[in-house]
Amino acid sequence: MTKRTELSQIGEFGLIDHLQKLLNYTHKNTHIGIGDDGAAMTIPPEEKMVITTDLLVEGTHFNLMYTPLKHLGYKAVVVNISDLLAMNAKPAHITVSVALSNRFSLESVEELYKGIELASQKYGVDVVGGDITSSHSGLLISVTAVGSAPEKQIVRRSAAKENQIICVSGNLGAAYLGLQVLEREKEVFKSSKMQPDLASYDYIIGRQLKPEARKEIIALFKEKNILPTSLIDISDGLASELMHICKQSQCGAQIYEDKLPIDIQTYNTAQEMNLSATTCALNGGEDYELLFTIEQNDYEKLKGVAGIATIGHITDKNAGLQMVCKDQTLIPLSAQGWDGLKQNTK
Amino acid sequence: MTKRTELSQIGEFGLIDHLQKLLNYTHKNTHIGIGDDGAAMTIPPEEKMVITTDLLVEGTHFNLMYTPLKHLGYKAVVVNISDLLAMNAKPAHITVSVALSNRFSLESVEELYKGIELASQKYGVDVVGGDITSSHSGLLISVTAVGSAPEKQIVRRSAAKENQIICVSGNLGAAYLGLQVLEREKEVFKSSKMQPDLASYDYIIGRQLKPEARKEIIALFKEKNILPTSLIDISDGLASELMHICKQSQCGAQIYEDKLPIDIQTYNTAQEMNLSATTCALNGGEDYELLFTIEQNDYEKLKGVAGIATIGHITDKNAGLQMVCKDQTLIPLSAQGWDGLKQNTK
Repeated sequence: MTKRTELSQIGEFGLIDHLQKLLNYTHKNTHIGIGDDGAAMTIPPEEKMVITTDLLVEGTHFNLMYTPLKHLGYKAVVVNISDLLAMNAKPAHITVSVALSNRFSLESVEELYKGIELASQKYGVDVVGGDITSSHSGLLISVTAVGSAPEKQIVRRSAAKENQIICVSGNLGAAYLGLQVLEREKEVFKSSKMQPDLASYDYIIGRQLKPEARKEIIALFKEKNILPTSLIDISDGLASELMHICKQSQCGAQIYEDKLPIDIQTYNTAQEMNLSATTCALNGGEDYELLFTIEQNDYEKLKGVAGIATIGHITDKNAGLQMVCKDQTLIPLSAQGWDGLKQNTK
Repeated sequence: MTKRTELSQIGEFGLIDHLQKLLNYTHKNTHIGIGDDGAAMTIPPEEKMVITTDLLVEGTHFNLMYTPLKHLGYKAVVVNISDLLAMNAKPAHITVSVALSNRFSLESVEELYKGIELASQKYGVDVVGGDITSSHSGLLISVTAVGSAPEKQIVRRSAAKENQIICVSGNLGAAYLGLQVLEREKEVFKSSKMQPDLASYDYIIGRQLKPEARKEIIALFKEKNILPTSLIDISDGLASELMHICKQSQCGAQIYEDKLPIDIQTYNTAQEMNLSATTCALNGGEDYELLFTIEQNDYEKLKGVAGIATIGHITDKNAGLQMVCKDQTLIPLSAQGWDGLKQNTK
């Protein structure tokens, strides 16, 4: 039997002391870490500090029935790192706040923090602060990530221009279909108590439970000497993110269905579930891939680079956001990405 | 009747757009605010960036039955500003994340953000980012505050030395007794439906519902050319905070009961409730006053300054933390401040 230590035995300060031991400081710019009223760090001179924050709420963003706590901790860090990368910034530090009820044991909180530490090590960030508190209901994780970049290297969503090329990293729709499989198997398990065999869905489930932030793409920009004209990470679905770029850059966009990068497991699972793989790619969300636009002159530099798909081009604002389908018909796209507050009322 | 607009009518992006209009950017160091994957700001050259974060959870930290949302928003900002001041840093920027259920209307979320904006204006910080998401249970607010200070001006908890003077700003125990009155009147209201007359408790209730962070004290340090040897804000109670200083500075402390600053309304309410005003001052918490130690040489500079009480001195580690009572007896102090995770199990 696994050991279970009640949080009430050690209290808030005891828990913080305990968890602190799981965290390592390796970033050269960390000046003061956990253990005071605040943390202190050095922002490289001549650089802007970049900050982003995301909440993950049980029942809204994750279901603990199929989400291991270690994976959840990992994901909570990754989704924030992804936002820093989407500004073309270097991640450096994070704070992690957790609200949890006493149904969690010390051992389960440790699992969560092991995932947080694993992601922190992988992405080269230090956990320098946070808060832990009790909640009468579910688990909630609030992460804030801090990084930096030279002012001229920061890429926003607002400078895409007509005729520029729209690119996306990796592939789309996998995390969404991974979630559909997990939800389906949860229902099967509830009624039959049979452990599901998920081997044939390993890739898409991995994309849902343990996403990665695409720091290689940021490295690639540097290596190829490319500064995207706009950049955003795909958390709510390609269509929704492209709409953000169009809105903030005051432009339209045309993308091509047959250019959308879709993994074979995503495609097969969509077929099996009677879903359109294209719709999953457009509206699925949680891919944490990077969507960006580049000048036409930069196109040659990325041509043929594995893992970067050229999916369309920026158009005039009046043209709106459109997709050329496989049968050559043109359809307008609307963002049907995840919206927690609207979903809430279903 | 007050207007009620459902959040489901406008969705997450609509809500963010709407709330953004309530927030003003006034800080000269804000480079990119809300509306991109991250915000960007300038940290003054030659200064360290200082960061802190706090969670406020409904049912654990506040009760909406007697906490107006505008006050709650104000307090969520103030408690974080207080932590930055407790590092002797200048507050500059905050991010605010909120998880809420659809029992909240657009108008009530607006009230919350009006309080956030009011505090931001008062303390000279810009709200540069955040997250809004649905929750199936209560309201939760996660604020992260960023500021900066020259490295040599940052004051930690760890450099108090024997014979140094222990000081505290303002007065103690008021916020705790304010909470006790609110809790008592809530019970009376529940059974009698009579609106309570709280006029004679106005000061202590104000201290509970609308605390302030003591930026004047930080200004005073500068004016008097004092650099405290240790500094902490009082969120969990004087005894608990003094214990943090003793632990991290490897020292003991002796304080005097008759030196504890207690407001007359706090004292009278404690009497009325058969509570010890001293115990409320030691363990009440949420005062957001500053507790600090200074060199003996600096004592003259603060002597007679209104709103600063000299309550004792630092002793050898082996002496522990003790209080000389009014009857000259010596008692050991233990931290009985608020601990959410322990409280949870009551």
